[in-house]
Amino acid sequence: MGISVNKQAVYEAAEKLRNWGRWGREDQVGTLNHVTAEDVVAAAALIKRGQSFALGIPLDRNGPQTGLFGGRWNPIHTMLATGTDAAAGRQGKLLYADDAINMPVQAATHWDSLGHIFLDDKMYNGFDARLVDCNGLAKLGIEHARARMVGRGVLLDVARHKGVDYLEDGYGISNDELDKAAKAQNVEIRRGDFVILRTGQLEQRLQSGKWGGYAGGDAPGVKFENCYWCQDKQIAAICSDTWGVEVRPNETTEVNQPWHWVVIPAIGLTMGEMFYLKELAEDCARDKVYEFFFCGPPLVITGGTGSPINPQAIK
Amino acid sequence: MGISVNKQAVYEAAEKLRNWGRWGREDQVGTLNHVTAEDVVAAAALIKRGQSFALGIPLDRNGPQTGLFGGRWNPIHTMLATGTDAAAGRQGKLLYADDAINMPVQAATHWDSLGHIFLDDKMYNGFDARLVDCNGLAKLGIEHARARMVGRGVLLDVARHKGVDYLEDGYGISNDELDKAAKAQNVEIRRGDFVILRTGQLEQRLQSGKWGGYAGGDAPGVKFENCYWCQDKQIAAICSDTWGVEVRPNETTEVNQPWHWVVIPAIGLTMGEMFYLKELAEDCARDKVYEFFFCGPPLVITGGTGSPINPQAIK
Amino acid sequence: MGISVNKQAVYEAAEKLRNWGRWGREDQVGTLNHVTAEDVVAAAALIKRGQSFALGIPLDRNGPQTGLFGGRWNPIHTMLATGTDAAAGRQGKLLYADDAINMPVQAATHWDSLGHIFLDDKMYNGFDARLVDCNGLAKLGIEHARARMVGRGVLLDVARHKGVDYLEDGYGISNDELDKAAKAQNVEIRRGDFVILRTGQLEQRLQSGKWGGYAGGDAPGVKFENCYWCQDKQIAAICSDTWGVEVRPNETTEVNQPWHWVVIPAIGLTMGEMFYLKELAEDCARDKVYEFFFCGPPLVITGGTGSPINPQAIK
Amino acid sequence: MGISVNKQAVYEAAEKLRNWGRWGREDQVGTLNHVTAEDVVAAAALIKRGQSFALGIPLDRNGPQTGLFGGRWNPIHTMLATGTDAAAGRQGKLLYADDAINMPVQAATHWDSLGHIFLDDKMYNGFDARLVDCNGLAKLGIEHARARMVGRGVLLDVARHKGVDYLEDGYGISNDELDKAAKAQNVEIRRGDFVILRTGQLEQRLQSGKWGGYAGGDAPGVKFENCYWCQDKQIAAICSDTWGVEVRPNETTEVNQPWHWVVIPAIGLTMGEMFYLKELAEDCARDKVYEFFFCGPPLVITGGTGSPINPQAIK
Repeated sequence: MGISVNKQAVYEAAEKLRNWGRWGREDQVGTLNHVTAEDVVAAAALIKRGQSFALGIPLDRNGPQTGLFGGRWNPIHTMLATGTDAAAGRQGKLLYADDAINMPVQAATHWDSLGHIFLDDKMYNGFDARLVDCNGLAKLGIEHARARMVGRGVLLDVARHKGVDYLEDGYGISNDELDKAAKAQNVEIRRGDFVILRTGQLEQRLQSGKWGGYAGGDAPGVKFENCYWCQDKQIAAICSDTWGVEVRPNETTEVNQPWHWVVIPAIGLTMGEMFYLKELAEDCARDKVYEFFFCGPPLVITGGTGSPINPQAIK
Repeated sequence: MGISVNKQAVYEAAEKLRNWGRWGREDQVGTLNHVTAEDVVAAAALIKRGQSFALGIPLDRNGPQTGLFGGRWNPIHTMLATGTDAAAGRQGKLLYADDAINMPVQAATHWDSLGHIFLDDKMYNGFDARLVDCNGLAKLGIEHARARMVGRGVLLDVARHKGVDYLEDGYGISNDELDKAAKAQNVEIRRGDFVILRTGQLEQRLQSGKWGGYAGGDAPGVKFENCYWCQDKQIAAICSDTWGVEVRPNETTEVNQPWHWVVIPAIGLTMGEMFYLKELAEDCARDKVYEFFFCGPPLVITGGTGSPINPQAIK
Repeated sequence: MGISVNKQAVYEAAEKLRNWGRWGREDQVGTLNHVTAEDVVAAAALIKRGQSFALGIPLDRNGPQTGLFGGRWNPIHTMLATGTDAAAGRQGKLLYADDAINMPVQAATHWDSLGHIFLDDKMYNGFDARLVDCNGLAKLGIEHARARMVGRGVLLDVARHKGVDYLEDGYGISNDELDKAAKAQNVEIRRGDFVILRTGQLEQRLQSGKWGGYAGGDAPGVKFENCYWCQDKQIAAICSDTWGVEVRPNETTEVNQPWHWVVIPAIGLTMGEMFYLKELAEDCARDKVYEFFFCGPPLVITGGTGSPINPQAIK
Repeated sequence: MGISVNKQAVYEAAEKLRNWGRWGREDQVGTLNHVTAEDVVAAAALIKRGQSFALGIPLDRNGPQTGLFGGRWNPIHTMLATGTDAAAGRQGKLLYADDAINMPVQAATHWDSLGHIFLDDKMYNGFDARLVDCNGLAKLGIEHARARMVGRGVLLDVARHKGVDYLEDGYGISNDELDKAAKAQNVEIRRGDFVILRTGQLEQRLQSGKWGGYAGGDAPGVKFENCYWCQDKQIAAICSDTWGVEVRPNETTEVNQPWHWVVIPAIGLTMGEMFYLKELAEDCARDKVYEFFFCGPPLVITGGTGSPINPQAIK
């Protein structure tokens, strides 16, 4: 394709690709509309061995947040009642433990809601960005997707396809490469799919024990042109094992995260980030089956820009 | 059955029913072991119409916590970046919204982990309660169930079976009544099932706009004898639309939550609470099908006593 | 005085009373500039008995927040390490307790910073309200007052002056009444004073055990005309034992909190709220001395709209 | 003095120095009892110029917590209402900003309460450590000191006395050195003093822009023998510009923080940490006056192990 990426290209893509009004003036879920009930039934048939893979990373103080982006912190898990209290006789007629968690909704494995990114002062479907204030998202909150994150999942294991453990930071994945990976894996991308890209970056960081710039720094990821691919394929969602799906450093310095500028506010594409793919990818490599039933329900966070999740890929 | 419920009856049941060691000395998931891969494959065949029902209640300040139990609070959702900031020119080359959530893991719809309740100074499988300290659960944390909350779901709509909108607070559901409801609904309870009981209480509270004692006060729910039923049926998990599944006031004042004393630490039974069942139950009443594919993945909260969830019932 | 309070009166007062530029274009502390070094030295001489009164209410789950105003919550205090952990052998070579607190800065006894209230799109000293975004207050944050909350304190015990335990909700205190109370108490209000008004409302709520509408509902307090009094007296700060100093219901429905509209953004007046005055007031009634050394340092919350405090009145 | 520091020496010192029962069986404030009303009156006379120095560091995300000790985090300041919301027309008849803070009470400048450290299973005054559970400190919480942190302050500027900008990590300050510094500064340490030690470490870290091991790593500080000095001098409190007052690495590896083992649970000594001393120390060097009025009220955190503070030194 060979797009020269700059601010103008971003606006052009946003103009060409935008789905505003496509599913009604009040639509809140964008490309999740690509999934039909028939697709869900068909996806169920992919459950052949009864094995579930959990794609969420642990929520704890060892998470990837290191302060690079906007003040996000790693999950803070605090106890409200403990077994040591119980054993010390400090409780009553019920001995129990209790606890709380405090975290940015996008601190670990998560969905972005369609109100997470703005195109100037607009959100997906033309909603005013000012509808997102300190009370949360009056439109496009993640709660609208509460029953929509179910369908056919497809893994595109780009790292394995390239024969490497992980793609290097800054490596841009082209549309052509995605198509070749799909072909090599013998899997077809279809309308309504939850497409999951594996770069290997998350596994490399876990193995090294050092997050480095994982959350907001350089990363492998899709090139800007991928926005056309997503729209063309009519996929339901795109997910990856990186912080932000798209390649960093970005292909332009005129805007930050150019692909995001288009896919969320213009296309209304659901995006999943920091997916843990090790065992799933190994399994797919083993049985050569890169499709599966996908179920990744968000928490019903009213007005949330997203939700922490633990999606299930079931084969 | 007619058990006289007192402290002795609790210890007797715990002794008779305990599954410690049944699945190995290091087992962390208890009755979830009842679910086999074959069960998951069979459950997938229940997806016939491709419709998903979200069973999680909204996570926001209007939740059920009113201070009755142990200092739990309703989810606190705060914004870290907003569209109003973006529109005011206070951001940079990426216009975005971001946010955080702070909540007790059991504040709304949730799983209990097996380390949530102690029997004296022991947890399920004989683990020492003192392994639960301010650093979390060193054993039996919810993270162990990250890929295990998938299988056949069954709704037992006890309220509808009784011909009422909701069961009254204090109404104790007997084992016999559960069996009759199942029979009337033409559904069989099988080994490895995720059994979901509907009392109507949650819907009644939402409709009235007043939570009252929902979170910790009186409620309809299963009688103490239900611990025998769960063990006998070899179910994977029991869930309900109430705060704590069992009837309140309890059948004894010698202990608080006698059924809990047995099912979690002795049996190792997974428990789901505050499930939102309105649409699912209406659908089941309509098509007379009370079984479905169930997928309710917990967040991977390391050492958590449970997890907020949004389980999916898919028909 | 007899002001007819409406939106126009608010704007008129704001115009007449505004101190923008009075202490320089970059001034961040407003009326705290009224306090001179000599005033602090003179105030020190008021320490005659060596007794300190703590004016902060406890920070815990029993606080006044009941959801009436903007989603504030009572302080959430959670333990990070406990003596029960230590006793259970779960710690190492240092046995200790540790904890955290999470609270709106204005949830209990606190200072408002000058960036807490806007007059249309302006703050005190003419700063743009948009300088207050999700990153905090770029101007007028409470940190600027870190060394300025020291001087002469004066208690005006209006309730005692009126011969009642507490003023009724809705009771408006006139300027004339303040002057009479001061005269009766034989205390003069001077330039640079920290003036503390006692209505008795806080004590009444503590005694009754019911906060009711304390945090955001009806209350006794100063009439709108008080903004003229504060400016005329050149006081450093005004404080009270109520949630918001001014009378509620307000004297107009055209704006919410008309006195606030003027005193914070126009005058640049520092305001203290929810001061606990019981013992101090009893002591003043006993020794007839209504002046004292005042020291109420805010926490240095960068960009904060205020700070929780525990001010000291020292006699 | 030359103590050989090991576990036995710690227990010996604890035995010799303990003040249990000295101020009554229910005493909750320990050495703060050394301060008399006369001392406060006398201290007031030290206010000669009317200048206040704020000794608290900023509470924000740039604080010293880097994960070295027990999971403490830097203050998280989040907005609940903003000027950008107001300007965007998202508010009502009151335009305002609001915010919240979430922090470990000991994350920045703070007091330790007497229940912060245990000697085996005991706290100061012989209270059982198990009285500190997930509900907080049933005894010795910081709330007991709410009106007690007022008196004569003395700065011992050890770094300046030694002619260096800052003492090196690992440098142990002897009792003799403290006495010499006091003598050189022409200031006497008296019963009831709030003694503040300056090592220069905090300033060095702020200047370098790198906290490194400030919060839990190596540091200059008092030698173990200092516990005898504190008891002998009958001071009210000891404070410093370091994370933990005592030298690190400690003089023994048999226990962690040996001086803490004695001063808090045995002596009942109040301790202040991370005090910001730059301007105060410069001023003292200039006018040669190292004594001042000290007022450092804690927040009234019910059952808190301490409190964030912004103490005032007033000259």
